[in-house]
Amino acid sequence: MNGGISVAERDAVGLRRLFHAHPETAFTELWTSVAIAAELRRLGYRVRTGADAIDLSDVPALPGPRELARAADRARAWGADDDGLRAVRDGHTAVVAELDGGAPGPVTAVRIDIDALPLAESADPGHAPAREGFASRDPEAMHACGHDGHIAVGLELARRLAKGGFPGRIRLLFQPAEEGGRGARAMLGAGAVAAVDRLYALHLGVGLPVGEVAAGTCGFFANAKLRAVFTGRQAHAAHAPEEGRNALLAAAQAVLGLHALPRFAAADTRVNVGMLRAGTAPNIVAADAELRLELRATAGHVCDELERRARAVLDAAGAAHEVGVRTERIGAATTADCDPAAVRAIAAAARALPAVTRVHHAHRFGASDDATFLMRAVQEQGGQATYLVVGASSPAPHHSPAFDIDEACLGIAADVLERAIRTPEKEVP
Amino acid sequence: MNGGISVAERDAVGLRRLFHAHPETAFTELWTSVAIAAELRRLGYRVRTGADAIDLSDVPALPGPRELARAADRARAWGADDDGLRAVRDGHTAVVAELDGGAPGPVTAVRIDIDALPLAESADPGHAPAREGFASRDPEAMHACGHDGHIAVGLELARRLAKGGFPGRIRLLFQPAEEGGRGARAMLGAGAVAAVDRLYALHLGVGLPVGEVAAGTCGFFANAKLRAVFTGRQAHAAHAPEEGRNALLAAAQAVLGLHALPRFAAADTRVNVGMLRAGTAPNIVAADAELRLELRATAGHVCDELERRARAVLDAAGAAHEVGVRTERIGAATTADCDPAAVRAIAAAARALPAVTRVHHAHRFGASDDATFLMRAVQEQGGQATYLVVGASSPAPHHSPAFDIDEACLGIAADVLERAIRTPEKEVP
Amino acid sequence: MNGGISVAERDAVGLRRLFHAHPETAFTELWTSVAIAAELRRLGYRVRTGADAIDLSDVPALPGPRELARAADRARAWGADDDGLRAVRDGHTAVVAELDGGAPGPVTAVRIDIDALPLAESADPGHAPAREGFASRDPEAMHACGHDGHIAVGLELARRLAKGGFPGRIRLLFQPAEEGGRGARAMLGAGAVAAVDRLYALHLGVGLPVGEVAAGTCGFFANAKLRAVFTGRQAHAAHAPEEGRNALLAAAQAVLGLHALPRFAAADTRVNVGMLRAGTAPNIVAADAELRLELRATAGHVCDELERRARAVLDAAGAAHEVGVRTERIGAATTADCDPAAVRAIAAAARALPAVTRVHHAHRFGASDDATFLMRAVQEQGGQATYLVVGASSPAPHHSPAFDIDEACLGIAADVLERAIRTPEKEVP
Amino acid sequence: MNGGISVAERDAVGLRRLFHAHPETAFTELWTSVAIAAELRRLGYRVRTGADAIDLSDVPALPGPRELARAADRARAWGADDDGLRAVRDGHTAVVAELDGGAPGPVTAVRIDIDALPLAESADPGHAPAREGFASRDPEAMHACGHDGHIAVGLELARRLAKGGFPGRIRLLFQPAEEGGRGARAMLGAGAVAAVDRLYALHLGVGLPVGEVAAGTCGFFANAKLRAVFTGRQAHAAHAPEEGRNALLAAAQAVLGLHALPRFAAADTRVNVGMLRAGTAPNIVAADAELRLELRATAGHVCDELERRARAVLDAAGAAHEVGVRTERIGAATTADCDPAAVRAIAAAARALPAVTRVHHAHRFGASDDATFLMRAVQEQGGQATYLVVGASSPAPHHSPAFDIDEACLGIAADVLERAIRTPEKEVP
Repeated sequence: MNGGISVAERDAVGLRRLFHAHPETAFTELWTSVAIAAELRRLGYRVRTGADAIDLSDVPALPGPRELARAADRARAWGADDDGLRAVRDGHTAVVAELDGGAPGPVTAVRIDIDALPLAESADPGHAPAREGFASRDPEAMHACGHDGHIAVGLELARRLAKGGFPGRIRLLFQPAEEGGRGARAMLGAGAVAAVDRLYALHLGVGLPVGEVAAGTCGFFANAKLRAVFTGRQAHAAHAPEEGRNALLAAAQAVLGLHALPRFAAADTRVNVGMLRAGTAPNIVAADAELRLELRATAGHVCDELERRARAVLDAAGAAHEVGVRTERIGAATTADCDPAAVRAIAAAARALPAVTRVHHAHRFGASDDATFLMRAVQEQGGQATYLVVGASSPAPHHSPAFDIDEACLGIAADVLERAIRTPEKEVP
Repeated sequence: MNGGISVAERDAVGLRRLFHAHPETAFTELWTSVAIAAELRRLGYRVRTGADAIDLSDVPALPGPRELARAADRARAWGADDDGLRAVRDGHTAVVAELDGGAPGPVTAVRIDIDALPLAESADPGHAPAREGFASRDPEAMHACGHDGHIAVGLELARRLAKGGFPGRIRLLFQPAEEGGRGARAMLGAGAVAAVDRLYALHLGVGLPVGEVAAGTCGFFANAKLRAVFTGRQAHAAHAPEEGRNALLAAAQAVLGLHALPRFAAADTRVNVGMLRAGTAPNIVAADAELRLELRATAGHVCDELERRARAVLDAAGAAHEVGVRTERIGAATTADCDPAAVRAIAAAARALPAVTRVHHAHRFGASDDATFLMRAVQEQGGQATYLVVGASSPAPHHSPAFDIDEACLGIAADVLERAIRTPEKEVP
Repeated sequence: MNGGISVAERDAVGLRRLFHAHPETAFTELWTSVAIAAELRRLGYRVRTGADAIDLSDVPALPGPRELARAADRARAWGADDDGLRAVRDGHTAVVAELDGGAPGPVTAVRIDIDALPLAESADPGHAPAREGFASRDPEAMHACGHDGHIAVGLELARRLAKGGFPGRIRLLFQPAEEGGRGARAMLGAGAVAAVDRLYALHLGVGLPVGEVAAGTCGFFANAKLRAVFTGRQAHAAHAPEEGRNALLAAAQAVLGLHALPRFAAADTRVNVGMLRAGTAPNIVAADAELRLELRATAGHVCDELERRARAVLDAAGAAHEVGVRTERIGAATTADCDPAAVRAIAAAARALPAVTRVHHAHRFGASDDATFLMRAVQEQGGQATYLVVGASSPAPHHSPAFDIDEACLGIAADVLERAIRTPEKEVP
Repeated sequence: MNGGISVAERDAVGLRRLFHAHPETAFTELWTSVAIAAELRRLGYRVRTGADAIDLSDVPALPGPRELARAADRARAWGADDDGLRAVRDGHTAVVAELDGGAPGPVTAVRIDIDALPLAESADPGHAPAREGFASRDPEAMHACGHDGHIAVGLELARRLAKGGFPGRIRLLFQPAEEGGRGARAMLGAGAVAAVDRLYALHLGVGLPVGEVAAGTCGFFANAKLRAVFTGRQAHAAHAPEEGRNALLAAAQAVLGLHALPRFAAADTRVNVGMLRAGTAPNIVAADAELRLELRATAGHVCDELERRARAVLDAAGAAHEVGVRTERIGAATTADCDPAAVRAIAAAARALPAVTRVHHAHRFGASDDATFLMRAVQEQGGQATYLVVGASSPAPHHSPAFDIDEACLGIAADVLERAIRTPEKEVP
C-alpha cells in the first residue's frame, strides 16, 4: 500500500516530499487520507474515517461522480489500496485520530489541513521540488499552500506522542477542503471538536522566516465563496443574434460590476472572480456561463454586506441581458480571535526552543481559513483556541506556482506543538 | 464495420438518421468519414482520403492529441474499423470521390459538409430525433445544421450516379470543419477543385419550407474567427491581490469592448464572443483566459476592418490590466456571388420536379459558409458555381438544440442535383 | 430688426448664409423663427406662431427657463425684437404660413425644418463658412445638417408663390426640433396637416451630388431617443465609500450594456449613447448621472424591441449599484413610405430642369426624420406624401463640424418644389 | 464692504454662519478671502495676499476666465469691494497674516482651509442651516467639510491673539483649494512655512463628537487626483457610425477598468471616478469626454503604483476605441506623521479645558489633506507639526448635503489653539 512501508520509514522531510508529489484538491484527497489513516492506525491511534469523520450532507458543490472516479483511478495508480479507498469514498476524506496521554488533562485538538490547489507547479530548476525530483505528479494540482508540510508535521507529532506520557488526550483533525472553505464545517457536523478544551490550528509560512513563530494570529478575513450560473438562450450568431440571450455577455458584465464593488472604510476587503466558463463555439450565442468568486472582509458584517451587494450585481447582470442567474454559496470562513491562554502556551513552548529566534503574539494573517469555524466552536463550549504560524521562509507567495517551504520549519513546528501538549497548563510561564 | 452493411442497406432517410445519431465536430469526423469512404468505395468511386484529400499544414487550432484520441475511442466504440481510422488520422477527415459519367462533359463538383456542432441535443419528445430514437449518442455534440442530411443526400446521389450515364465527370467533396470555417481552404490545398468546371454547394433548410428551392444565394457574410489568449500572473486573492495580473478581468473587459464595436452603415455586421474560459479557483487571481469570437460582415473589407478593430480592443484589454494577449485567426469565410449559368441549371432542374412548389434565384443567406472559398477558386479558373438551398421546414433555428429537418427535403435535394448533373448544358432552358 | 431689411433683401444664398451664422438648437430657434415669421408676413402669408402653430403640452425635455432666457438674450443680441420674441416664447418656435393659389386644387404642405445642432463648427480655412465669414456666431451650435439651406429654400419658395397663380393652397411648415425628433408631433398637435392633400418634406444633401434629385426616399430608421437619470447617494470617497451609491458607475455600466445590445437579423439597427453627465468632483461618490441615447431600426417593431431591451439594461445597471433609474422618451421618429403619385410629381418637376442630371425614385435615407409622422398623418387622412432629397455635394458627413452644402442646390430645390406645386396633378407625365 | 462691519461684529458662531452662507469652491474663494483679509488688517496683522501669499505657476486645472468672471460677479453681488477683488484676482485667494507675540519664542503657523465643495446643500428642515436661515446662497456650492467653521476659528483666534502677549510669532495660513489638493503646495511656493517651527493644522468633525479632541492624527491617505481627456471623432450615429471614434464609450470603459483596479494587501486604498462629461446629443457619436478621478493609499508608494496602473487603464481604454487620451494630475496629497512634541502641546491644552471630555493622541483620519505637504516641509526644516481634530458631532458624513457641525466646537477649537500658542514649550506637561 502507498502509506505502508514508505510512509512508515520516512522522516518529516521525507513525508513532506512524499505528500508534495501527490497533491489532491478539495474532497478528492483519496490517496492522501488513505495514507494518513494507515499510518495513524499503525501508530496505535483510534482512527475515524468516512461518515464518522465528516458529514457531507450540507456541503455545496462537491466533486461529481466523474471527477471522483478520476480521482480514485489516480489514487489507485499511485498505490492506494481498494479497502482504504472504500473507506474514504464519495468525498469522505477527513481523518480523525485520538490517543490518551495516560495522565489527567485537557482534550487537545490539532487541526491539520490536507488539500492541494488546482494549479500547475513551476518546473523552474530554481524551484526545489522540481530540482530535487519531488514535484507534483499531477500537472493540474500542486501543494502551493504548505499543507504537505502540515501533514508531515501532523504525522511526526503523532509518532512522538504515540507512546503517551502527556496530560489529557490528543485529537488530530486531518481536514480536507480548507481551500474553498468547506471542510471544517463538515467535520464539525461529525463532532470534530466534541469535548475539546484546547485547539491548535497550524499554518506554515504566511510571510514569516524560518525561526520565527507566531503564537497567535489576527486579521482573519471572513470569506464567502459563491458560484453563479447564468442561463440564457442559444442562437445562431449570424442568422438570428436577437433570438439569443447571451449568458457569456451577462457573466462578463457581472465580472466588471463585481470587481467595481466599493472599498469599505469599515474593514479591509477583497473581491476576486477567479473562474469563468461560458459558451461553446464562436458562432453560437452562449446560453450558459458559470463564474466562481470570493468576497472577503476583516469584519464579518462587512463580508455579509459585500455578499449582498455581489448578489445584486449578479442578478442585475442577468436582468440586463434577460438571462437567468442562480447564485449559491460554495464555501465560507469567518473571523476569529485567539485566546490569550492558548497563545501563551504556544509562545512558551516556542521560546523554549533554541531554533526559534523570535516569537510573535498576534501575527497579521491577511487571508482566510475555515479553522475559524473550529476555533469559534471550541470557544463556544468554553475551550480556548489559537492559530499558530511557523515561519517557513517561502520564496514565493502562497498559491503561486513557485511556492515552497524551508523544510527546517517542519521540525520546529513539531517541537512547538509537542512541547505545548506535554506541558501542563499550570506550568506555562 | 460501421459503414458496412448498415450504410449500404439504408435509404436516404435511414442514412440521415444514422449520421444524425453519430455527430462529430470539426476535424474529429472519424466515424463519419470512415463510413462515407467505405460506402463510396463499395459503389465503385475512386476515393481519396487522408493527405490526398486535405492539406492540414496551415489549419489553425486543430484538435490536440487528447481530443483526437478520445474521438478515435468513440469512433471505435461506434464500430469504426482500425484500417479506416488509420486513413483519416490526425484530423484528415475529408473524403473526395470521383466517377466518370461515360460521356463528354464538364467536371462537376458537389460540396457536402459533414461536421456537427458542440451542443447538446434537445431531449424534448416534440423533437423528432428524441421521439423516434435517433438522437445524438454524444451528449456534447449534435447535427444542428443539417449536415447529417447533406451526407445522406451526397451518398444517395453517389448511388444514383454510380452506374454512369451522365455527361462529364462527377467529384463529390465530403468536407470536414465547415463550422468554424477551416475545412474548405484545407481541401483546396489538396486540389479539391482542380479542373472543376461547375460547383454545386448544397444546404438544406436556411429558412425555406419543404418544396421551395433556391437555385442561388446572396447575402453571404464574410467571417473571421479569432482565438485570443490572455496571459497574466497568478496571485493569492487575499494575501497579495496586487501581485496578480488578472487575465479573467481583462478577458471580461474585452468581451464588453468587442460587443460594443460599432454597427456599420456600409454593411450588415455581426460580432459574437461565443466562448470564454478563464481561471481555476475563486481564491486565485486568474493568470489565464481564452476567448473565441467571430466577426462577420456582408462586405469583405468591412469584415477586415472589424477584425482590425477587434484586435485593437483585445490588445487594449490586455494593456489595461498588464496582461499579455495573443490573438490568432482560427477560421474564415468570404463572400461570393453565384454564377447565372449555374443558377439557371439548378433552377431548371428544380422547376422540373413536381415536389418543388417554388424556385428562388437569390435567397438571402444571412450567414457564412467556407464553401465560398471553393466557389471563388472555381470562378478564378473560369468555372461557375452556385450555392443552392433546399427547403426543409425546420421547426427551430440552425444551431439550436431543437433544430430538425423535414426528411422530405432529402429526396428533393438528390433529385435536383441528379437532374442538374444529367442535363447537358445546352439543354438547360 | 433681424428679419427686416436684411432678410428681405437677401437672395437664397444670402439667406442661407444669414441663417447659417445664427444657429439655434431645438426649441430655442427664437431669432430664427422671428425672422421667418416677419418675412412671411411681409410677403402676405397668413402666419401662425406660438400655440397656434405648435402644441408643446406632451413634448418631453423642453429647454428649461435658464436655457430659454439665455436663448432670448442671444436672440436679442442678434437683433430679434421683443414683440417677435414674445410670440415664440417658451419654446413655441414653429411658424405655419398659408396662401391661396387662386385656382382650385389641393392643399399642399411643405415641411421645412429649422433647428441647428449642439456642436462647434470647423474653423478650418478649407471650410467655406469659416473662409467666407458666415460661420456660426455661437461657439456651441452649428447648422451641420443643412437646415439653414432648408430655411432659405422655404423663404425663396414663399416669395415665388407670393403672387399666387397656382392650383390650390400652399402651407409652409417651418418646424423646430427635428434633431431629437420632437417638433413634428408637436406641430401635428396644433393641426399642422389638417386638410392637407399632399406633403413634400425636403432635405438637402444626404449623400447626393448637386444635380441629382431623389423624388422619393426609402430606408428610414424608426428612432427612439431616451433620457435616463440615475440617482444614487453621495459620499466622501475616502471616509465612507461604502455609504455611497455610485450613479456614475451605474451609468458607465449602462453605456457598455447598451452598446452591446445585439445586432438584429430582422432589421438594420443603430445604438448610440451620445451624452453622459455625472458627478461633480473626484473626491465625492457621484450621486447623479444622466445619459441620452438613441435606438434606431429600419423596422418599427425592431425599434420597439430595442427600446424594451435598452430599458432593461438601464434598469439593471441601476439595480447592480442600488441606484434609482428613471428613463423617459425624449424624441421619436417612425418609418414611412413615399406615395407613388407624390414621387411622380417631384420626379417630373426635376426632370424638367436642365440643372438636374439624374433623378432617383427611392434613395436610401439611412437615418431618421420625424417628418415621417407628418407623412403618416397625411396618408391616414387620404393624402399623399414624399420625402425628397436635393443633392448638395457635401464635403463632410451630416452632423460633422465640416459639413457644408454646395449652394447651387438651393435654386434647384426651389425650382423643383415650385414647379411641382404649380403643375396640376393631371398634367404630371 | 462684506468684511466690514458685519464680520467685525460677529462672534465665532456668527462668522461661521456668515461664511457658511457664502461658499466658494477651489480658487474662486473671492468673497471669502476679501472678507478674511479685511478683518485681519483691521486687527493689525501684517497681511499678504495675491502673489505674495500663493504661487499659482505650477497649479494644474485652475478655473478658466469665464468661471473666474462669474465668481467675481457673484462676490461683487455678495458685497465684495473692487479693491479687495483686485488683490485676489486670477485665483490668488490665499491670505497669510502674521503678528509678533511680544516675547521670545517659536514661529507658530496655523493652517486654516477656506474652500467649499461643488454640491447642493440639503433643504431639509432637519438640516440646521436650512432651518435657521444661513444655508448656502449658491445652489451649486456648499461648505460640506467644515471649512466655514475653520475660518471662524481662525478669525476668532486672530482676535484673541491680536493684543499679543504670547511667546514668539503667529502666522495664520488661510489656504484655498484644499479640496482637490492644490492650495497647500502653491502656498509653499510663496514661502508659507518659511522659518516656521511649529505647525498646527486644524480640522473639525472627522467623526468625533463635541468634547473630544485628537491632538494627533494618523491614517492619512496619499492622494493623486487626475483629469483625463478623451478625444475621438464625431459622426452621425445613423449615417456613418463606423466613421466615429467614440470618446464616451472609451470613457465609460475606463470607469469600469479604474473601479476594478485591485485592492492592495500592502495598504488601504481608494479609487473614485467622481466626474464624467461626454458628448452633446444622442444622435452624434461623441468625440469628447472628460473624467476626473482620485486614487488614494495609506502608503505613498502604493498611491504611486495605483496612479501608474490607472494611467495604463486610461490609455488602454482610448486605444481600444482608437480615441486619444491625455491624463494630467490636478491635485495631490501625501502622507505625514504627527510629531510627538506638537501632539503633546495640543493634548495638554485640550486636557486643561473643562469642555473637553476626552483627548486622543492618534485619531485615524481615513482621508487626505494637502496640509500634509506643509507638515512635511516644516519637518524637513527641523520643525514639528500636528494635525488636530476637534469633535463636532456631525449628523451626516463630510461631503454630504446634510453635513453640519455642532457650533460648540468652535469655541473649543479656539480655546485649544490659543492655549497651545500661549503656553511656552517648557511648560507643556
